This record gives sequence, C-alpha cells and structure tokens, in this order.
Amino acid sequence: MGNLWQISEESLSPNLKQIQSQETVFTIGNGYFCTRGTFEEGYPHESSATLLFGVFDTIPIAKEELANAPDWVGIQLFVNGERFRLDKGKLLSYTRILDVSTGLLTRTVQWKSPSGILLRVNSERFASLADEHLGMIRYSVTLDEAPKDQPVEVSLRANFNAARGNYDVMHWNTTDQGHTSDLLWLQSQTKKTQVTLVQSMSFNSDDDQVQKEFVDGDIEPSIRLTGSLQPGATITAEKSVVMYTSRDGDEPLRVALSHHQKILSTAAETHSSSPHKVMIFDYQFEQQKAAWEQYWQQADVIIDGDEKAQVGIRYNIYQLRINVSDHDNRYSIAAKGLTGFGYRGHIFHDTEIFMLPFFTYVLPDIARDLLLYRYNLLSAARKKAASNGYDGAQYPWESTLNGEETTPPSIVHPETGEVIPVLNGFIELHITSSIAYATWEYWRVTGDDKFMRDYGAELLLSTALFWDSRAEKNEKHNNYTISDVIGPDEWHEHVNNNAHTNMMAKRNIQTALSTLKWLQTAAPSKATALIEQLHLTDERLQHMQDVQEHLYVPQGAKGLLEQFDGFFKLPTFDQSKYKGRKDSYQGILGIHEVQKYQLIKQADVLMLLTMLRQETDYDTKKVNWDYYFPITDHDYGSSLTPALHAILGSELGHTEEAYKMFMKGALVDIENLRGNTPEGIHAACAGAVWQAVVFGFAGLRVTEDGYSTQPHWPDNWQRLKFQFKHKGETVHVDLQR
Amino acid sequence: MGNLWQISEESLSPNLKQIQSQETVFTIGNGYFCTRGTFEEGYPHESSATLLFGVFDTIPIAKEELANAPDWVGIQLFVNGERFRLDKGKLLSYTRILDVSTGLLTRTVQWKSPSGILLRVNSERFASLADEHLGMIRYSVTLDEAPKDQPVEVSLRANFNAARGNYDVMHWNTTDQGHTSDLLWLQSQTKKTQVTLVQSMSFNSDDDQVQKEFVDGDIEPSIRLTGSLQPGATITAEKSVVMYTSRDGDEPLRVALSHHQKILSTAAETHSSSPHKVMIFDYQFEQQKAAWEQYWQQADVIIDGDEKAQVGIRYNIYQLRINVSDHDNRYSIAAKGLTGFGYRGHIFHDTEIFMLPFFTYVLPDIARDLLLYRYNLLSAARKKAASNGYDGAQYPWESTLNGEETTPPSIVHPETGEVIPVLNGFIELHITSSIAYATWEYWRVTGDDKFMRDYGAELLLSTALFWDSRAEKNEKHNNYTISDVIGPDEWHEHVNNNAHTNMMAKRNIQTALSTLKWLQTAAPSKATALIEQLHLTDERLQHMQDVQEHLYVPQGAKGLLEQFDGFFKLPTFDQSKYKGRKDSYQGILGIHEVQKYQLIKQADVLMLLTMLRQETDYDTKKVNWDYYFPITDHDYGSSLTPALHAILGSELGHTEEAYKMFMKGALVDIENLRGNTPEGIHAACAGAVWQAVVFGFAGLRVTEDGYSTQPHWPDNWQRLKFQFKHKGETVHVDLQR
Repeated sequence: MGNLWQISEESLSPNLKQIQSQETVFTIGNGYFCTRGTFEEGYPHESSATLLFGVFDTIPIAKEELANAPDWVGIQLFVNGERFRLDKGKLLSYTRILDVSTGLLTRTVQWKSPSGILLRVNSERFASLADEHLGMIRYSVTLDEAPKDQPVEVSLRANFNAARGNYDVMHWNTTDQGHTSDLLWLQSQTKKTQVTLVQSMSFNSDDDQVQKEFVDGDIEPSIRLTGSLQPGATITAEKSVVMYTSRDGDEPLRVALSHHQKILSTAAETHSSSPHKVMIFDYQFEQQKAAWEQYWQQADVIIDGDEKAQVGIRYNIYQLRINVSDHDNRYSIAAKGLTGFGYRGHIFHDTEIFMLPFFTYVLPDIARDLLLYRYNLLSAARKKAASNGYDGAQYPWESTLNGEETTPPSIVHPETGEVIPVLNGFIELHITSSIAYATWEYWRVTGDDKFMRDYGAELLLSTALFWDSRAEKNEKHNNYTISDVIGPDEWHEHVNNNAHTNMMAKRNIQTALSTLKWLQTAAPSKATALIEQLHLTDERLQHMQDVQEHLYVPQGAKGLLEQFDGFFKLPTFDQSKYKGRKDSYQGILGIHEVQKYQLIKQADVLMLLTMLRQETDYDTKKVNWDYYFPITDHDYGSSLTPALHAILGSELGHTEEAYKMFMKGALVDIENLRGNTPEGIHAACAGAVWQAVVFGFAGLRVTEDGYSTQPHWPDNWQRLKFQFKHKGETVHVDLQR
Repeated sequence: MGNLWQISEESLSPNLKQIQSQETVFTIGNGYFCTRGTFEEGYPHESSATLLFGVFDTIPIAKEELANAPDWVGIQLFVNGERFRLDKGKLLSYTRILDVSTGLLTRTVQWKSPSGILLRVNSERFASLADEHLGMIRYSVTLDEAPKDQPVEVSLRANFNAARGNYDVMHWNTTDQGHTSDLLWLQSQTKKTQVTLVQSMSFNSDDDQVQKEFVDGDIEPSIRLTGSLQPGATITAEKSVVMYTSRDGDEPLRVALSHHQKILSTAAETHSSSPHKVMIFDYQFEQQKAAWEQYWQQADVIIDGDEKAQVGIRYNIYQLRINVSDHDNRYSIAAKGLTGFGYRGHIFHDTEIFMLPFFTYVLPDIARDLLLYRYNLLSAARKKAASNGYDGAQYPWESTLNGEETTPPSIVHPETGEVIPVLNGFIELHITSSIAYATWEYWRVTGDDKFMRDYGAELLLSTALFWDSRAEKNEKHNNYTISDVIGPDEWHEHVNNNAHTNMMAKRNIQTALSTLKWLQTAAPSKATALIEQLHLTDERLQHMQDVQEHLYVPQGAKGLLEQFDGFFKLPTFDQSKYKGRKDSYQGILGIHEVQKYQLIKQADVLMLLTMLRQETDYDTKKVNWDYYFPITDHDYGSSLTPALHAILGSELGHTEEAYKMFMKGALVDIENLRGNTPEGIHAACAGAVWQAVVFGFAGLRVTEDGYSTQPHWPDNWQRLKFQFKHKGETVHVDLQR
C-alpha cells in the first residue's frame, strides 16, 4: 500500500510541459505565499514562482496580476568546481515526494558528475504553516565516490534571484540590499503598485570547518559556504527565509530582520548552540507538523478502499489550505490560487460556488474572511451597477484588490493577431447572485448572526437591488425578464432569460427580503439604518417582491428547465464524430459556430439544481440531468464542473458516472488531465472535489434542525469519514458500507 | 564658444522622463551594439539597454524585438560600507558630456555621502569603433574629505546584470557562467530565438594594494576590488567587456575569451605591465579616437556661424554611425536604431528614404549593405505579394530578420482596452517603391554597376512587377489606378490613387525597364537570365510600359497634385483654434474624425517632390508647397518630415521656415522635442537633417556629369563644408557666404 498522504515521482520527465506541470503539483505554501516546485539548482526553461497573497502589480489590459517575487529557493552546489545540474552529468536515481500531511517537499537524487564524482543530494523544503513568513530548505550532500578516493572541495551558494517574472514580465525593482552578521536581505518594490517586499536569509552548515561568506548584490545576493568533503561524508546546510511586505505593516525591513533573528535565537536557546551556526530546521519542522496536524484534524476526509481517491481528495484539501490566508480578508482565492500565472490571480465566482462550501463547513473563520473580502468591495460593486445604469451592487466578473472589473475587454490572439472580444466582464451577471448565495449558505450552516447583521444583510439587499433594477418588466406577460447575458455555459453569448441567472436572481431577492424580515426582529435599529441607507421604501420592497415572484424562467415539460430562451430550438450536435478529439468543441468549431448548437461548456442548469439541491425534487433533477448531462463537454469544456456533476449524479443513482466525474476533478492537476496545470492548479475543482464526496457520495444535507446523510458508494469504497461544523458544533461523520 | 562636438548637461534632472530621455541622448555605440546612457551605479526606474545589431527574440503580436542584453555597465562603489548613489546623499556638482568626435561619454560628480564622506567620482565610457566587440569604462574615485581625515575602505563591484528586459519583458536565460584567471564571463541565450551571447569582463585597478575577487553567479556575476583610500588620493579601475554572439560564428565563448585575452596581452606588451593588473583604457582609447577621426574625415559637415546647428548636425551624424554595422547586411537600421525599445527594432521605409541618402553619398559601402539587406529578403517579399494575389515582390511595412511582415495587425489600447486595427502592414504599399528608389539613387550616385547587375536589377524588376500586377485597369478612361491604400500621410486610410504611391510606382516601373535595357547591353547573359527567371515576356514588358505610361495621378491646375482622389473636396480645417496644443490633431480629433479634413500628418506630395526634386520644375514645387505646407502637422505629426521640408523650403526661398524645420529635426532628441526620446532616437530624422543641409541649404544636385550647388544661407551661417563620393571620387564642397 502506498502512503496515502503522498504525491511522488520516481523520475524526471524529459518533457518540458510535464516538468512545468510537476512544478505546479509540487507547490508548497501556507496562505501567505506559495512557491512552485522548481529545483534549488534551477533547470532550463523552468517556470519558477513565489506568489504572495494579495501582492499585485499593474499590467496593461488585464489591469493587475500577482507579482512573482524574487526567487528564494536557489542553492547552487559545486564539487571541485563542477556544478551539480540535473540536465548535465548522469542522474542515477531520482525521487520527489510531497507529503501533504506535513507540507514537506523532499527530493533525493544520486548523480554522477561529468568528471565522475558520485553524489547523493537530498533537499527538504516547506513553507511554514506555523509561521507564515518563514520558508525553509535543508540541503545535504553526500560524497559517495570521488576520484582516487580524495576529498572534494564543496561550495554551496544560497541566493535570492531578482531576475524573475510572470513568465517573462518582471515586476520588481531592488530598492536596497545588505547583510547583518547572521542575515542577508533583499528589499524590492513592485514597479507600479509600489508594494515593498523584504526577504531575509540565513544559510548555515552543521560543519564547523565550512567557511561562510556574505555576497551582497542587487540582483543575486547570496550566502556562500565552502569547505571540503571526505569520501562517504555528508554536509548539511539549512537555508531559512523570512518574508514581509508593506501590506503587513510599516517598516517591513526592521520587522523581517527582528522576526528572523528571533527565529534563530529561539532555536539557539532550544538547542543551546550559537546563533551563528544554528541549525533550526528540525525545530521549525516540529512546529510545521503540529500546524498541519491541527489542520488535518479538522479537514481530513477518509476514504477507505480506494487509494487513488484517498490521495486525490487529500491533495485537493491541501491545495484549499495553502492558497488562502487565515487572517487577511483584503484578497480572496484566485482561480489558480498562488500556484501559477494563469488568470493572473484574479478572483471569479469559482471561490463562492466551488470553494466556499468547504470553508463554510470546515473552516468557517476563513469562509467569513472570504465573504468579508466581497463585503469590503461593495462600494466598487455599487459603482459598477451605477455605471451600467442600475441600482444596488453588481460584482465584477473578475476581481482583484479594489473590486473594479478586471476582465480584459478584449484580447489579441498572440499569433494570428485576431481580436477576440471578451464579453464576460460586461454581461456574465450571475457572479452577483453567487456571492449572495454563498453569504446565505454561510449563515445557514454557521448560524453566524453577527456576521449577517453587520455585513451579510447589506450585501444581500444591495445585490438584490441590482437584480430588481436589472429585471425588465414585460407588460404583456405581466412578468420580468433578463435579456442579453452569458450564463455559466460561456459558449452561448447574448442569451435571454438564462435559467440559472434568473433563478438565482429570484433567490437573491428572496433571501435578501427574508434577511430583512429577520433583521427587523433581531436587530431593528440595524434594519432601520439599512432601509434608510439603501432607500428601501415600501414601494421598492413591494417591487422587489413582485420581481421575485414574477421573474420568468424558461422551461419545458415536467420541470425541464430551458437553459435560455430558444435553447431547445437549437439543433442537437452529433458528438460521435469527434471521438478522440484533443480540444474543446469551441476550439474545434470556433467561437461563433459552437453557439448554434445544444452543446454546452459546463453545468449551467445542472449547476443551478446542484446549488438548490435541498429545495428541488428528485424528478426535476432527473429530467434535467438526463437532458443536459449528455450535451456537456466534460473533457475539454470547463474544469469547474466535472466533479460538481458527481453530486447530482450520485443522488440520481449514476454512481459510476459520478465517480468518473469525481476522479476527473480529483486528479485534474496530479495527472495534468487538461494540459494546463503548468499555469497553476484548478482551485475551483479542488473545492468541487470536496463537495462531490461530502454532498455527493456521503449525501450530506444540513437543515435548520440538524443533518442527514445518504451514502452512494462507489465500487470499493468501504468507509467515508469526515467532519464539519454546524452552528459552531463539530459534527463527526463516519459512514461504513 | 562651446565645444562644437559635445552634448553636455550640468545637472541631473529630478524628472524621470527627462532622465530617461537623456539616457537615450547619451547612448554610446559602434554599430555592433549600442548602450544607453544609464549610470554605472544604477538609478531608480532607469531604462537601461544594450541592444545588439540584429539580435532579436520572439514576442507575441509584434513578432520579434531587439532583445535587451544583460547590462554590462554596472559598477557599484562603497566607501566604509556606504553606497554611492546619485539619489541619496548630496550631489555637490555634476557634469555629463558626450564627445561625438571620439564617442566618449564622461561623467564627473562631487558627492557627499550621508555620513559626510566627500568624493569625486569620474567615469569615462566608450563602445569601441576600432573593435566592435569591446566596451570600456574607466572609473576613478578621489577621496576629497573623510571623517577625522582617516583613510576609508573602498569597494568596487563590476557586474553583469541579467535582470534586464525590454521595459519589463526579459529575453535571456543564463546558460553558463564562469571565470578564468583574468576574465569573468556570462553566457546567455534568448528565450525563443536561441541566440547565444557571451559577455566577458576584466576589472582591474592601478593600485597594487587592492584585493580582487571573482564572484560567480548566474544573474549577477561580478569582479570585486577592495582596498583603502587615503584622503586626497584617487583609485582608478578599468572595466573592459567583450561581447560575441552565435550570429558572429560558432563557439562564441571560446572566441570571446581568446579575443579578450588578446586585448589584455596587447596592452600588456605595449605598456610592459602584467596582464593581471593591466591598464588598457588609454591604449584602447587611442584606437577609438583614430577610428572616429577617420569617420569624421568622411562624414563631418561644418557649419560656421551657428553653434547650435553645428552641434546638432554632428550629433545626428554620430547617430547615423553608431546604429549600423559596417559589415553585416543581415539587418538594417531600425526606426530607433539600437538606442531604445520604440518600434522594437523593426525596419521601415525610414531607412531607404531618410537615412540611405547619407550613406549613398558618404559611406557607399554601408549603403550597399543596407540595400543588400533588402535584396536578401526578396523571397519573403515575393511571398507577401503572392499571398495578396500579386506578382513580383512586395516589401513588408515593418521588417526584421526574415523579411516577413512584422507590423502588428491590431493593438489593444493598454488602458481602455479599445482595439485599434493597424492597417499599415496591409495597405501602406509605398515602402516597395521606396526601396526601388533608394536602389536607383545608389546606382546613380555611386555608379556601382556590379551591384546593379548582380542585385539591383533583380530588385527593381521584381518590385516593378508587383506594381504592374497591383495596378487596376480602368477600361473607361483607358488608364490604371491603385485603390485602397495608405500613403505616407497615415491619417488618411483606404484612399484611392494616392499621388505619392502612384507616381513612385510609375517611377519604379520606369527605372526597372531602363535598368533592363542597360543590362541587355552591359551584361546580356544576366539580362537573359533575369528575363527567364522573372517571366519577363515581351507581352509582360509591354504591359509594364503601358502601366508606367498610363498610371493615373490625380491633379488640379498648374501642376498641383491632389494627395488622393477626393482630397480637395474634403473640408479645410481651422488650426487657429488649437494654438498651444500638446498633441497631434489625430490625438485630439480621433482616428476617424481626422480623416475627414485636409489636415495631414506628414509630407506626402511634398515628400514625393523632394525625392523627385531634380526632375520637377520650380513652379510645380511652389504650387504644391503653398498648398500642402500649411496643412501639415509639423509639431505633433510625424517626426520624419520637418527636416525634410527644409529641402524644398530652401529651394523655394523660404529659408527662415526651412531653417526652423531643420532645427526641429536637428534637436528633436537633444531637446526631446516630441517627448518620446526615452523610447530611442529618431533615426530617420537624423538622416533628414543631413539631407536638409546638403540638398537643402547647400543645394547639392548630382547629375550624370557632375554636381552643382546652390546655397540658401540661413541667418548667421557663414560657411558650409562637407564631402561626398560621386562614382568613387571624393568631392570636397566648401561654400563660403
């Protein structure tokens, strides 16, 4: 049996895309920063990155992107002047393991240099979950064989590397650099947004004979250790790095150095060694293990009988933690988290619909911060609504720090020069109800009345006002419509009355109005203040009620929803001709052609019914599943929904299909199923994978009064164990087949 | 009287744009590379660059750009650990001088450190014209005052800095790095095009007590000198850098090191010092002075009585030399030369129309190379013509190494996201006749029959075939038209029968046919071969003759040309309302609105008549000047034409106006008249400035039999002296008022 906490590889792929995909997979992080799994020694065309939570720089067109910080992992090793490089010499053995139970990344290689020196090189690396400012590497070199059995000269250079960018685009200028008696430091500033970052480094060896030298420099400052190594002997060095930014407070340089010095001193006290040559890895790793153990006590999901699924779910739960701060609500979780450059660190509805349930049920404090991120940006959402001629608050399709729309209005194809308009920022509206939905769900599950009173109610009412003004009155049919939108299925643009959009808009208004009623009893003065602030006259409230009741949702017979007006009239599409395709139907048919068919990118109606699963009957789910599941591009459409489909799928008894969908999600990055893992993990998918297990296979339903489960067991699954919090109480679920 | 060879500044501007503009102005170069005038010590938000002739990397949309090489000028100075920075401490005096007679850039500063140490720091820098692979810096530090009159510790770090990009976009990966006993080297490779660059460095001091250390590193390798400096004493260090690329031949590393070692040895022999601490600056600067003296003997233009004009013309003639290789015809002179990132190193008709005359008359070997660049890319031009359904060769509006069209088809406005189509690559056709014109002029002035036989004839006939197929037969009027083009005035798009385009197309065909006639006599077998290769049947030749005779050119009365069909019907524009504007009329009115008026960006008809000035009568020039000169945006339209206007202007007796136009060109970069000098010099303007003096104020006309001058003296000009080559003979012109 393999270790059920570990992702590993036993060889280094010769394929560059595969190498870059594994860099994403082997990312370490702690919510303050993530660092991709590039090698200490570097590798040709690697895509190294350290991205910090909420640290952006300005760029053209897409407004801003997470700014790849100077690389802190570099360690270059020389033996008798020969450089240890994975792309030269001979790699006799190679293993890399990410242990998500402790967040430790280890790599073990045996390597023969071109001149015949045989080395074993081990590296261990983690981003401390116990101290989010700290990153650590332990690097050890064993001389297995030397020419004539003579000792070799060893040189180890630990550096910061400022020549890094988002792909090729650099974001930082060095503003100062220096060293103290123990620490080398680099101070950088983003070019446009002027965020200051300080990185400090210690680099020490356990060998007292080793010479240590500080090499200052603006671009590649380093600490260098030189010594000699006897055949059979091992030298071990530890690199510790502390990072602070001006977003953490004033004087990041002073704070970083004092914090780092304290880390060295603490270890020195503990181990009664001198702070100059102090070895701190063991001590810090103890803290790291304790912090991760605490996390897994809350967040682990145990699946007995299916090792692949077990490792997969844990890997995704690991990702859900490393990509989000547990105390900073000025930013949220990006589509790729902090693991790659894809989507530039922008926030989508991926967070609220796919990831937030995990946090709401498991780590409600983080869920609250994620919602506060949106609450704090209400004024920008109000501006967006007003700029479009509407009331209330309209959230941007893509969001960063200031809450303005950051979806690029169009892009130019890098090769053909073709201009591709990007409409999502203009007409993909459902993000606004997604945020309202997540707010309501958070309240429903946590019972956090204080949050609802102070923040949630205002958010719900403000977004409801947007829908109220956005809905168009149809006098003839005495109802309301919402035209010219894009629904979750982004392959159909400029559609009218998207069922998902309209249903969720109704629900947004409905939950807002019932929140207001609750508030009038629970906190009457707050209710009065909100009514005044938002101009909620009786007439206005009456209108909202009217819209809520009469907002049109297109449907066929027996509860079958029509994705949008006229969808059922589109010709069906014969997918059988495209077996073995390697691209999405949009890629194959083109942006314009794909719109003409009943062929969809991702769950749209089915996502709606999944979200509303506790209030939708079985038959309605069934009729819609049978219609929409077969016409969805599960392989090359959106990565968001395969795992989400497992929820309805298992409820409807399609357990095998549901399991397949779940595994497509669980392994999407570990196996680079979509080919784009080099650009970062699929964070929404990670959240959907958790939902698939808990809401799908375990069939968890939480109501006002309690909870119920209704397991649907995939083959081989013997036991399913997890916990969640319901209104502050921890609930342990342990299901046996 | 100021030095008539020097550009200087006496203070460091606090304005960032002005600093970056001066970085362009103080560029040094030798045609193999140029290096912008950034400071050895660095400066916040500087825009440093070393661009090498023809060294490109791939980019999205605009295809490729000159790849800013790792910075070689860095020298950081520390005294008692305090860093010398121009943006900290106190700058007591500051002077920077570029002496174009020797290509030497010097900077002298007196600086007080925050702790009160008073230093004088001198730097001298040149890119060797005698050895194009060599760049040199001499850096000296004098301790004017030290605390308690004690010696200070001095540390000097000379580095290569790989953290450089085109603005923020990095193009190089380090592939190897190391040092020998004398030299530190860095080997880099462009990320996409895989050009290898090797840079090697020596860094030595005249002080025997100084410690020298080689610090290897991938990103910022350096040589460090440390010593102590007595009050009143001076330490001098010399940094020499050699650069070779894989475009120069195989094994650039071996070649660079051996070449560099030889430079050290030669100096050692000459000065009988050891190669380890050898001082070579004086020796190399002697070679440099000799090379520049030789250049100025051929290229200088002396204007007595007008110091500003004298310095201006010399500065422009300096630029014409440093931006072009004198032996490499795989690339040509970019719109900004090698001095900045503007236009990404792409080649426009700027070269053929504005710069080539200088080379044709003064440095015909370089002119020949510039034409061979085009000749060598004929096959790409044939492909472009064929892809548009035409015969012959159609040159791209923007060209780089492979001769494909590199004009971006559209751009997205970085802030608004607005998509701006760029039509020039599709319909701005006159570049093709510009190249033919330059070829013909080269032949006419140099009498280089061999070139014409081997290359020129094929180029002329191939481009003529393009026009022959591009012209549309109008049966009704029994003539030919060319519709849907952009002429030189780029503010009017999709126009029909642009007078410039059509007249130059006629001339292209006419010169091609007469070249063929000449060839049939001078080299009958070559003529036969070309006729066969290009399918020049009698019928085809007859058709070409017909097009040439009957290609329509729109005109009004008395020889007034109409810029294009319908131009005269457009409303005139009242410019008087826009006095004091700071933007072009296109910027003010918008791309669409400006098209509606008789308001033009740059010389179009007048450029045509300037090019054909020897075959156009005075009255025609006058009537067109009077019409078009007033409706041209001389201030914010194109930078290309103000200086060019001086040619016709002076011939027509508008000497004062012509002088103003000339000075707008001569000072365009020195005084950053257009605000865009930070992106690089205006190379076309540099060529136009030379033409303005020689063809305009001196009134030089070269004919089959000889030459004539007809001076038009601007105020204060007393003497005009220059030389040129006519059919291999050097002609000295010395005009006295």
